[in-house]
Amino acid sequence: MRWIAGLLGAVVALSGAFAYRAHASGEADGAAAAPLFGIKLPPDYRDWRLVSVAHEEGNNNDIRAILANDVAIKAYRAGKLPFPDGTIIVRVAWSYVPSEENNKAFGRAQSFVAGAPTNVQFEVKDSKKYASTGGWGFAQFKDGKPIDDTLLKACFPCHVPAKADDFIFTHYAPNP
Amino acid sequence: MRWIAGLLGAVVALSGAFAYRAHASGEADGAAAAPLFGIKLPPDYRDWRLVSVAHEEGNNNDIRAILANDVAIKAYRAGKLPFPDGTIIVRVAWSYVPSEENNKAFGRAQSFVAGAPTNVQFEVKDSKKYASTGGWGFAQFKDGKPIDDTLLKACFPCHVPAKADDFIFTHYAPNP
Repeated sequence: MRWIAGLLGAVVALSGAFAYRAHASGEADGAAAAPLFGIKLPPDYRDWRLVSVAHEEGNNNDIRAILANDVAIKAYRAGKLPFPDGTIIVRVAWSYVPSEENNKAFGRAQSFVAGAPTNVQFEVKDSKKYASTGGWGFAQFKDGKPIDDTLLKACFPCHVPAKADDFIFTHYAPNP
Repeated sequence: MRWIAGLLGAVVALSGAFAYRAHASGEADGAAAAPLFGIKLPPDYRDWRLVSVAHEEGNNNDIRAILANDVAIKAYRAGKLPFPDGTIIVRVAWSYVPSEENNKAFGRAQSFVAGAPTNVQFEVKDSKKYASTGGWGFAQFKDGKPIDDTLLKACFPCHVPAKADDFIFTHYAPNP
């Protein structure tokens, strides 16, 4: 109970801090925020630049793009760690589906593309606000709505193995 | 021979036309151009916005991102066909490799990421200049160097099955 009260207190404190900096980071003013880290859905994330791509099998079975805002892309391209405050990295995922149209053109079954969108996840760097989770806040949205705190608590522990890379798994994919 | 002479004439004509519009389309002034369609490597293509992602098995065995310039993204998001002149769509590809680092974090072998870059392909819309190939010019670069014409001749015939979509296979992947 003490833990929950502490968490709630932190959430209230974070909400205030968030209202102050929401606009600067490109996050929406009116959108719902994932309470644990107080992160709102940045309305312009789909305009951000590409870091890399990946395919996850297993329970996810998705194909995904990792995009990043200007602060993050600058750091990625410079190869500089840790990422500066203001960094936002987003993972956009879609179900992994075969493309009959592409396969016909190739003359063989070989093509897998983005199907229905699944969800979008954000990592926001604020070394003070999120000091207890390596400087990172986490959020996940589906249809514009944030998922609940229980799931978000699992984000940071899972990122700990990438501590040497400032807790970020995705590397910048170089140009061909 | 007559065919080759005609082609060479066309290339010379295209080169002149290209010099005129190279800057407007964001293509590099000093870079080498793929001769058949006279397309230079746009220096800023990695800053373009994401259309979708895909994985090709078979001979390619790559994972890829499809990005597009402002003209193209506007058309994609509006769902408007045909794409207007000035459209440039780029497919960036990397070898498809398992990620040991990610697999460790997931606790199972499920993660595939972008490995070494393979090549980058462009589709440039110019309904007059490229009238004989559906309005599209094609180019492929690796390490900043264009591939030769022989391979580029195969591009358009392969895109013909997508005629109903203005010869473009990649659909815009919606936001989750």
